[in-house]
Amino acid sequence: MPSISKKGRSMPESPIRKLVPFAEDARERGVEVIHLNIGQPDIKTPQVALDAVKNNTIEVLSYSRTEGTDQYRKKVADYYATHAINVTHKDIIVTTGGSEALAFAMGSIADAEDEIIIPEPFYANYNGFAIAAGINVVPVVSKIEDNFALPPIEAFEACITPRTKAILICNPGNPTGYLYTKDEIKKLAALVKKYDLFLVADEVYREFAYDGVQHYSILQETGLENNAIVVDSVSKRYSMCGARIGFLVTKNKSVIQAALKFAQARLSPPTYAQIASEAALDTPQSYFDAVIEEYVERRNILLQELTKIPGIKIARPQGAFYCMVELPIKDADHFAQWLLEKFDVDGKTVMVAPAAGFYATEGLGKNQIRIAYVLEKEQLIRAVAILKDALNRYSKV
Amino acid sequence: MPSISKKGRSMPESPIRKLVPFAEDARERGVEVIHLNIGQPDIKTPQVALDAVKNNTIEVLSYSRTEGTDQYRKKVADYYATHAINVTHKDIIVTTGGSEALAFAMGSIADAEDEIIIPEPFYANYNGFAIAAGINVVPVVSKIEDNFALPPIEAFEACITPRTKAILICNPGNPTGYLYTKDEIKKLAALVKKYDLFLVADEVYREFAYDGVQHYSILQETGLENNAIVVDSVSKRYSMCGARIGFLVTKNKSVIQAALKFAQARLSPPTYAQIASEAALDTPQSYFDAVIEEYVERRNILLQELTKIPGIKIARPQGAFYCMVELPIKDADHFAQWLLEKFDVDGKTVMVAPAAGFYATEGLGKNQIRIAYVLEKEQLIRAVAILKDALNRYSKV
Repeated sequence: MPSISKKGRSMPESPIRKLVPFAEDARERGVEVIHLNIGQPDIKTPQVALDAVKNNTIEVLSYSRTEGTDQYRKKVADYYATHAINVTHKDIIVTTGGSEALAFAMGSIADAEDEIIIPEPFYANYNGFAIAAGINVVPVVSKIEDNFALPPIEAFEACITPRTKAILICNPGNPTGYLYTKDEIKKLAALVKKYDLFLVADEVYREFAYDGVQHYSILQETGLENNAIVVDSVSKRYSMCGARIGFLVTKNKSVIQAALKFAQARLSPPTYAQIASEAALDTPQSYFDAVIEEYVERRNILLQELTKIPGIKIARPQGAFYCMVELPIKDADHFAQWLLEKFDVDGKTVMVAPAAGFYATEGLGKNQIRIAYVLEKEQLIRAVAILKDALNRYSKV
Repeated sequence: MPSISKKGRSMPESPIRKLVPFAEDARERGVEVIHLNIGQPDIKTPQVALDAVKNNTIEVLSYSRTEGTDQYRKKVADYYATHAINVTHKDIIVTTGGSEALAFAMGSIADAEDEIIIPEPFYANYNGFAIAAGINVVPVVSKIEDNFALPPIEAFEACITPRTKAILICNPGNPTGYLYTKDEIKKLAALVKKYDLFLVADEVYREFAYDGVQHYSILQETGLENNAIVVDSVSKRYSMCGARIGFLVTKNKSVIQAALKFAQARLSPPTYAQIASEAALDTPQSYFDAVIEEYVERRNILLQELTKIPGIKIARPQGAFYCMVELPIKDADHFAQWLLEKFDVDGKTVMVAPAAGFYATEGLGKNQIRIAYVLEKEQLIRAVAILKDALNRYSKV
């Protein structure tokens, strides 16, 4: 029998996916599973986007333009202008989700055995795309005690080798919820310019910045034009994860040209999703105001309830909708499985994302979990109470 | 300034894309450009698929399941059963177009510097996906004189090295229109089994087999279960190129497991497109009968008209909707550009795909073009007449 590739063997399995069969078993036993593990918002998609698809008049569902139409990309550029980001449609390629923008960015700037530095914990799929492209991820540890703020810039500098091509950040962070400050972005900018590296920023949670703090995009940094590549997506912004539309944005013409060739190979992004995404740009501001208000309330309630649990550490999130928590346990993988297999309170349990999968360094994050606060407030309160009971019982197992 | 990757520099640009600005200029001069260059069918998408999207009741456009729902994949397995292909839903991963199925297949079976053998001319994007994955393409030449039939199996065997992982075919072929015989598939099957290689078949044109000849899938070949990987797509079958839904199909469990991890990294295929594609499975047989009849007529008219042009060689197609033609010229790239820049008959010209981009071996196919017969008959007749006039004039330039 022919054997699969090394890549195929070393691609990470989703840290949550392993738990899915246990969640299914729990449901079959009649236990209600409250999901603290997923980044799928329960917020309604803007009606204007849903209607545009329902009212489409397509007769031949043909290929769309590889990089997205001029019309759509011009509107996207207008959207960026409202966020003080000065780009034109020529700096934008429409992609199949932020995922594809990330894959195009990596392919355009790094070859097999090249290195990309990423502060950990980081979105687990960064590792998947790196492995698929043969790129090595070099992690720099950020700490829960600092709310996962940017590690000292010297720690990044110490990792730079002749094979280093880029530093990749997620801002605001998944899984950390950390919102990088303008000062932190400036430090990274100075470093990548000093060593002629790219700075890639996943800014898909741009709108989700709380406490009156402004998100500062790497595209706002003067002098960084040739180094900055932004990965973006409509998924979280409009609660349209299933559309699969994202953007690669950069003023570096060579990168756009290279990324366009990767885009040509896969022909075009999905047509219906582009119809929805273009219409979504007309979503009224009141929608976002309500969504942000909702998330801030959820975060505040989550933090308030979590502080009732003894012996835990919490990274206070200022963005996105994730919260990293360190638990008084040894192995969050085991705990998460135990929650689904062996535990319930009045027929209810919770599913959490063990955090080890968000670290590249073996052994880190084993006692941490990521909580996604994408549930209604009452449900969140219930879920944290269950978590508290569970930790109490688990300590006696 | 940081520099882009070697990959980014060596990714092929679409052979057609270079001509697009010249076509735009021609249109601006008031010249009508008849497209013989593209594989975008003009056939209407089945109404049942269009209606399913228009009538969708989605309120939160959430992620769908990474590999596609059980329900959809079971229906797809039923579709394969109607083509004498015996697979279950567990052998199928729903992908974002056939393009992604190909990328997952390559990633699952080959690492950087590994080799995949492909008979040339081949679909140009195979090269793009190979470069993106760091894989080397090893071409085996097939000839227009043989209608691009399978080259002698010894030619494939001679290319096998310790780094060879697979043979990749397209059946029926783009750009060749060649439909491999059962006997040819059996020869390939014996070879891949002898050397423990994979046989990957792009069968997206499965339905487009003419003259009463049955398409023989590699999944029908007994004993090839662990070697056979099929790349499939709804794009051409239902004239739904813009949906971006495809399938990776294999009974090799290790490949499914590896491909699923690549699929997890990109989260899920597009939701609206899956709604359309699932509904498309209910397209009545009369739709396909009418479409095939239409393509056969178009092919016959194309061949009849082409034979009126002196000094050309034609590969008679028995499948798909492409026809390769060798012209009495030296450089089809130059000719194709000249057609758009310098030539018209009564305000009309044609756009063709120069074939050199379909060959990996430098210098091959320079006097060949690919014609896509996705136009109505009258338009095809007009286009070939223009081509004939153009060749006559071009020979005197």
